[in-house]
Amino acid sequence: MFSDKEKISRLLSYKNLLYRFKSLGFVRVFSDNLADTLGVSSSLIRKDFSYFGIKGNQRGGYHIDTVIEKIQEIIGFNEAQKVILIGVGHIGKALIQYEGFRNDNIAIVAGFDIDRNKTNEKSNPPILHTEKLGEYISKNKIKVAILAVPGPVSQSVIELLRESKIEGILNFTPLKLKSTDNLVVRNINIKVELANLIYSVKH
Amino acid sequence: MFSDKEKISRLLSYKNLLYRFKSLGFVRVFSDNLADTLGVSSSLIRKDFSYFGIKGNQRGGYHIDTVIEKIQEIIGFNEAQKVILIGVGHIGKALIQYEGFRNDNIAIVAGFDIDRNKTNEKSNPPILHTEKLGEYISKNKIKVAILAVPGPVSQSVIELLRESKIEGILNFTPLKLKSTDNLVVRNINIKVELANLIYSVKH
Repeated sequence: MFSDKEKISRLLSYKNLLYRFKSLGFVRVFSDNLADTLGVSSSLIRKDFSYFGIKGNQRGGYHIDTVIEKIQEIIGFNEAQKVILIGVGHIGKALIQYEGFRNDNIAIVAGFDIDRNKTNEKSNPPILHTEKLGEYISKNKIKVAILAVPGPVSQSVIELLRESKIEGILNFTPLKLKSTDNLVVRNINIKVELANLIYSVKH
Repeated sequence: MFSDKEKISRLLSYKNLLYRFKSLGFVRVFSDNLADTLGVSSSLIRKDFSYFGIKGNQRGGYHIDTVIEKIQEIIGFNEAQKVILIGVGHIGKALIQYEGFRNDNIAIVAGFDIDRNKTNEKSNPPILHTEKLGEYISKNKIKVAILAVPGPVSQSVIELLRESKIEGILNFTPLKLKSTDNLVVRNINIKVELANLIYSVKH
């Protein structure tokens, strides 16, 4: 419950909510406002805020703009996050076009594919051939890659990413990867999630 | 570690591996084969198999075809799983075209969107207007929906799904939903996963 991962997930929910409050005309909020909307206790919110050094006003409540700015800073999203995408299939394309990343200053700066019919250096972002992957990573100091290649080729791409000293992989392939000291992996297996859901509904 | 969710995830990995072994010409496997490839203990695999009533041969080892069939049956994937998709944006389209579902007998039988430029009753699957959602669900006894609508409209769609007695939602919207007694929810928030990953790499 108090792992860093969950804390960061909560910070992101707070931030999304704060944007919504702000669009309603709010200038400041109270931990109870956030608690009610999220269905958690207000003490948890105050604990999270205090853990990350987010301070309230003297007169009570939190100034929305200050909190949003502080959260962006904590997550490291005050500066642009450059991410590459490997595998420009259906899921890959959807991720490139996903608007949500932009709000959080995340930019997919290049896509890579083994299929030369998909490569296009002039598109935005450019889609390059996989043979340029290692060079691109070191030249642009890329640390995080999204992996959306088909199952059978994923192992070879992963080896290449390891050699290129990538530090984080968001893995959409069916192959479940384990994190190591030098590489953090998050696996998103849509089929397994859906299969689990169908199984739960049936039983 | 021994929750049903994890057991089912493991069964799916076993099944995927067994297909790969089969394609190599294997007829039977031993729990050690699976254990080595997955990096788990062979006793865990034997425990899982025994839990689900999957039996080995007298001479040792498991007959691959029998195990695959049994796993399909356990997960309920021996019969077609009808799922609907709500929100035919980038992610929604990618899911409709996702080949991986077909291997597991999962079929997205209809898509729904509020934008009449996207509806098309004659496409495969048909893309219908959201106003037909409730009727479609009850007529076709749909139990599971994939939700891929933009954040701002998600709440109203969720209410509609609840009223329509949907029992499972795979939720790709930014709104984190909680499961209830009548509704199982699995949340996949791609942005939060990526943000968490970037945060982990930075710290």
